[in-house]
Amino acid sequence: MIDTAKKIDKEPRITLLGAGPGDPDLITLKGIKALQSADVVLYDALINEELLDYAPEHAVKVYVGKRSGDHSYSQDAVNRLIIDYAINYGHVVRLKGGDPFVFGRGHEELEFAAEYKIPTQVVPGISSSIGVPGLQGIPVTHRGLSESFWVITGTTTAGLISADLHQAAKSNATVVVLMGLHKLAEIAELFKTEDKASLPAAVIQSGTTIDEKVAVGTVDTIAGLVAEQGIASPALIVFGEVVSLHPKYKLIKEVYDVVAGR
Amino acid sequence: MIDTAKKIDKEPRITLLGAGPGDPDLITLKGIKALQSADVVLYDALINEELLDYAPEHAVKVYVGKRSGDHSYSQDAVNRLIIDYAINYGHVVRLKGGDPFVFGRGHEELEFAAEYKIPTQVVPGISSSIGVPGLQGIPVTHRGLSESFWVITGTTTAGLISADLHQAAKSNATVVVLMGLHKLAEIAELFKTEDKASLPAAVIQSGTTIDEKVAVGTVDTIAGLVAEQGIASPALIVFGEVVSLHPKYKLIKEVYDVVAGR
Repeated sequence: MIDTAKKIDKEPRITLLGAGPGDPDLITLKGIKALQSADVVLYDALINEELLDYAPEHAVKVYVGKRSGDHSYSQDAVNRLIIDYAINYGHVVRLKGGDPFVFGRGHEELEFAAEYKIPTQVVPGISSSIGVPGLQGIPVTHRGLSESFWVITGTTTAGLISADLHQAAKSNATVVVLMGLHKLAEIAELFKTEDKASLPAAVIQSGTTIDEKVAVGTVDTIAGLVAEQGIASPALIVFGEVVSLHPKYKLIKEVYDVVAGR
Repeated sequence: MIDTAKKIDKEPRITLLGAGPGDPDLITLKGIKALQSADVVLYDALINEELLDYAPEHAVKVYVGKRSGDHSYSQDAVNRLIIDYAINYGHVVRLKGGDPFVFGRGHEELEFAAEYKIPTQVVPGISSSIGVPGLQGIPVTHRGLSESFWVITGTTTAGLISADLHQAAKSNATVVVLMGLHKLAEIAELFKTEDKASLPAAVIQSGTTIDEKVAVGTVDTIAGLVAEQGIASPALIVFGEVVSLHPKYKLIKEVYDVVAGR
């Protein structure tokens, strides 16, 4: 049983690794190196499975994916799995979409590992909040249009809209909402309340993957466009003048104005 | 003159590439591939020059670095250089620190290239705004502490503090300020005005490089700690309860309390 002999030799350790937004080439070199020395890879939903090929053949690959509505593993269960695998197999790579600290609950996993005194390492990933709009031609900041960007979760523990979104709707920041598509109409309403009905807005589904789709419009039109175009989760929402830099913005706005008889 | 023959053969194109925060292993695989097909690399200050080794030997490497106070090339000059090199040499990789759209003026370079109808491609990079705090043990978001993060430039065109910082000081967001170290006292004052003198705050210099240094304290103490520890630019500032998760936070706070006689 060579495998068993191997297992007991290895010191437990954990690498919390951000896989980036979807395109497997958007992982970092450091991330690839971590995968190459993995004994176990615990990976989430939305991870491109091509990335698993970087791990050695002997490595155990375990899907622990959580998407909204799919709670096959609770966070507690994942925390425990990481520890169990590290103790029994050695180097656990915890592969998460985007960056592990952008609503990834990465720190909770590190804290849990610390209780067991298992060494941890972090490898950041390209956060979809920045990379996905950027690849679509929407820079999160742009001289003269935006001096800041504010990234907010659309899904809070309580199932309500984050109070931060109320503040964000009042701000000058480019506002990027992750996991908020199911609340899009409600979120857009917050901006309308601040007299921002004509603020440019975009929704990008499955950024950097073959399923990528984008709707570009305004606070007023975005929910309708998303419905028309059949855009679904996972998706992010961008509110801000920077959306006007998207190549489709002008065109889509003109079409809308004609439809709306403006 | 084989080189000249090569040059005229190539179609001009431009890749806007984010190098990440400093550690050369934090570039993406897609970024490495872009460099491998570069005929020219135009790179900024704060780029780890090891990255240039990915470019072919024939590639021209040009430092166009701008740091605050070092305006050897204006943005206009850089824009023109990119075009000139693309037309004369082929594939220009414009290598920028962090992500090209996080205060990187990346979109201005794309717009300029579009005027010349030169095809462009974007490769996002790890933004120091997320990756550097994360690697230090400060997650930009954390359940129960922060539902959002707000990234703001400390250096506006006018040389003033961004109006967005005034709004941010009132918000519940984790606030990350890039290029703001020279305004640290003034920025901290904004948070004090909002009764946030005891809000945890950190400054991280040269994140992910051998020159990395970190000061961890509160809004009240951070400017003093930075001076004491001789922390200098490039550095980023983090304000928010998430800073309390940094391993040094508790210790440094206790030491400070003793010094301050609390």
